[in-house]
Amino acid sequence: MRTKELKQRVLDANLQLPKYGLVTFTWGNVSEIDRDQGVIAIKPSGVEYDDMSVDDIVVVDMEGTVVEGTLNPSSDLATHLHLYQCFPEINGVVHTHSKWATSFAQAGQDINPLGTTHADTFYGPVPCTRSMNDAEIIQDYELNTGKVIVETFQSVDYTSIPAVLVRNHGPFVWGKDAFEAVHNAVILETVANMNFVSLSLGHHTLDSIEQTLLDKHYLRKHGKDAYYGQK
Amino acid sequence: MRTKELKQRVLDANLQLPKYGLVTFTWGNVSEIDRDQGVIAIKPSGVEYDDMSVDDIVVVDMEGTVVEGTLNPSSDLATHLHLYQCFPEINGVVHTHSKWATSFAQAGQDINPLGTTHADTFYGPVPCTRSMNDAEIIQDYELNTGKVIVETFQSVDYTSIPAVLVRNHGPFVWGKDAFEAVHNAVILETVANMNFVSLSLGHHTLDSIEQTLLDKHYLRKHGKDAYYGQK
Amino acid sequence: MRTKELKQRVLDANLQLPKYGLVTFTWGNVSEIDRDQGVIAIKPSGVEYDDMSVDDIVVVDMEGTVVEGTLNPSSDLATHLHLYQCFPEINGVVHTHSKWATSFAQAGQDINPLGTTHADTFYGPVPCTRSMNDAEIIQDYELNTGKVIVETFQSVDYTSIPAVLVRNHGPFVWGKDAFEAVHNAVILETVANMNFVSLSLGHHTLDSIEQTLLDKHYLRKHGKDAYYGQK
Amino acid sequence: MRTKELKQRVLDANLQLPKYGLVTFTWGNVSEIDRDQGVIAIKPSGVEYDDMSVDDIVVVDMEGTVVEGTLNPSSDLATHLHLYQCFPEINGVVHTHSKWATSFAQAGQDINPLGTTHADTFYGPVPCTRSMNDAEIIQDYELNTGKVIVETFQSVDYTSIPAVLVRNHGPFVWGKDAFEAVHNAVILETVANMNFVSLSLGHHTLDSIEQTLLDKHYLRKHGKDAYYGQK
Repeated sequence: MRTKELKQRVLDANLQLPKYGLVTFTWGNVSEIDRDQGVIAIKPSGVEYDDMSVDDIVVVDMEGTVVEGTLNPSSDLATHLHLYQCFPEINGVVHTHSKWATSFAQAGQDINPLGTTHADTFYGPVPCTRSMNDAEIIQDYELNTGKVIVETFQSVDYTSIPAVLVRNHGPFVWGKDAFEAVHNAVILETVANMNFVSLSLGHHTLDSIEQTLLDKHYLRKHGKDAYYGQK
Repeated sequence: MRTKELKQRVLDANLQLPKYGLVTFTWGNVSEIDRDQGVIAIKPSGVEYDDMSVDDIVVVDMEGTVVEGTLNPSSDLATHLHLYQCFPEINGVVHTHSKWATSFAQAGQDINPLGTTHADTFYGPVPCTRSMNDAEIIQDYELNTGKVIVETFQSVDYTSIPAVLVRNHGPFVWGKDAFEAVHNAVILETVANMNFVSLSLGHHTLDSIEQTLLDKHYLRKHGKDAYYGQK
Repeated sequence: MRTKELKQRVLDANLQLPKYGLVTFTWGNVSEIDRDQGVIAIKPSGVEYDDMSVDDIVVVDMEGTVVEGTLNPSSDLATHLHLYQCFPEINGVVHTHSKWATSFAQAGQDINPLGTTHADTFYGPVPCTRSMNDAEIIQDYELNTGKVIVETFQSVDYTSIPAVLVRNHGPFVWGKDAFEAVHNAVILETVANMNFVSLSLGHHTLDSIEQTLLDKHYLRKHGKDAYYGQK
Repeated sequence: MRTKELKQRVLDANLQLPKYGLVTFTWGNVSEIDRDQGVIAIKPSGVEYDDMSVDDIVVVDMEGTVVEGTLNPSSDLATHLHLYQCFPEINGVVHTHSKWATSFAQAGQDINPLGTTHADTFYGPVPCTRSMNDAEIIQDYELNTGKVIVETFQSVDYTSIPAVLVRNHGPFVWGKDAFEAVHNAVILETVANMNFVSLSLGHHTLDSIEQTLLDKHYLRKHGKDAYYGQK
């Protein structure tokens, strides 16, 4: 794949983030790797989606050195690089602060499989990382973010659970390419939303309405004595 | 005001319901009274908003007899009529099943004034009616719905609290004309939404993030050592 | 009804799913049966709504054998077929993972009638099925999904409660044709949303604002001393 | 900066409020100060955003006297003025009743930093003011609103925490200009939304689905025996 095509794909995948409601302002970034060429294309740092063109996409080598483009790459580049190095079967990575998944990350809670919507994509709980310690935060923070993700997957299969919640931060999601990564990020957000509702339903009860009111409303719309609507 | 103008106003006010997200399908209806002529214009029963034209609006007299129009009036007409009879200073009435206000009605809970957004429009709690008894439901249900609303306002001023929650049903809202009634219905829905969130916040706590993580993220975007975005 | 018309209706009904916000990506499917011809038209499996044309709709006979179309039918076909066989008065079936109804399914909770919005369409609780056992899941899963639904309706009338929550999965909804099935699915989603809010309101309280603040805000907008807005 | 440019900027910043979903009807107002000229441009009181033109923007001097424009300035002008006087490094102020932040204000709760989305913009908790007393509400209410905000920031740095919740009222947010103030208001709303969800997640649990169901759904979409979708 030529670099130009790679940059176009990464631009298109980044533009799906606002389309699917996963980002506010410039928060969020998508990258894709061309493992044959040893290059990664990634969103530039702090650029508005509305203004972004293919020439703004930054191409770096496996050490993160810019090989094409005049803008700074996403400040999360070091995390993306570490994931590509440690997870050899993935070729696309996305990071967002999408609200439902981020809320689970803020609560430090895994997203457990409560239904088949989850099971269709994630073959088990989407884990939340441990908190990073002070040393990990102060020095090489973005690289250490990648390391704590990889540590979380020591006993979890990254190919069948293609997402993680970085504690107090937000989701990183991956896939076989940039588009599958975004696709999985949309599903993660949907699953997080529904899990929140299911969990919150837990312990509440209310009395149902009286049979007379149920009769009145159902039968004013249905059956031979209905009088709602036009004849 | 001529009938034609009244019908146009009622059509326009009804079309604001889907615009403001207060209705699903055909649920919800707006009426306006011309007290000089002794006529009320109201939405027809069960007609889609997209298909509604000014000729579909039904005009009735103070006994509810149709004086203009070929369609059945809203099945809630008797409730509107009773409100106009008992609340002489109102000229517009709206009924919806808007989701936040209806959820309070389903829980049988008043919407109490928790903030100035409420106080700007509603001069005290928006009350929820008592449950209707079987006799009230079985015979003359829509008229009795009006009666239970009026009963609720025996000790509440309907001019400064222009809305009610009919228990297990939904909101009725009024105003000096049809447009003010819809305006107040939008505010009621907003206030109900925010009250739900405020009430739910009640008793939960989580630890804040560590100072080191706060420093890292704030200072990577602000101050002399920031490295987020473009120079 | 000719097959071409049936396919067009099923296409149109499927396209209502994204319009009403009931689906993400390709999740969800609608079918309709022509009982005279003994054929069912159903959405193809895994095809994007944006790309779907009338020729993509698959027609099968009562055993589920494809009689028209080149694509695979929805993987949930066996569930649809079983419902048509056991519920003779229905002619349309829809399955979605719509978020509110699915959240109740994930919590294993019926949707009880808390208000008249529910009563207008569902003449009692919308039931949640029991969990399926391992044998039912491993072999003939989709057929067994239909069977557990039918089992749930042994003591429930499927004509007046045209929906079910398949536990840990999501809603199946039906009607006299495909459009009524989708219509009922939209109502189910709305009712689930409002039930969640009503149930969550249960036990929370907050003090109302002070009378002085209520006075200040109400009276700066209303009455002779109002000073908000233009004269 | 000439007054005309200032008015245009303030118009544009005000129009961002409906764009970002921060306001209902006319609620909310943005101002910007030109400290060299000693003038402030602010939204007129009670004017619809759809109808607003640059000539409607009101220009006042540092005492709040109108020096340009024919409409009444926002009724919250005195609050804006006091903030500009006491917070010399800010040049833009925005006030809204945006629903998530206002809900925290109604609950009297600070918005604590639970994640890096918060930390990227707010260097610590966004504080909620104390309740105002009767005397403060009855006389010079809007000025006293400004004073209680400034009091809240006696021990908080207004430059690194550019927002406050006025108790039982709503947020005031500021920045180096009107656009940064609106930008910060959007972030405050997003952070409030996510904090609500994180806090509500606190104590709920549900069992995960059985391994057999997880297997069935994951493996019907992934791997060699998958049968979802087209070949």
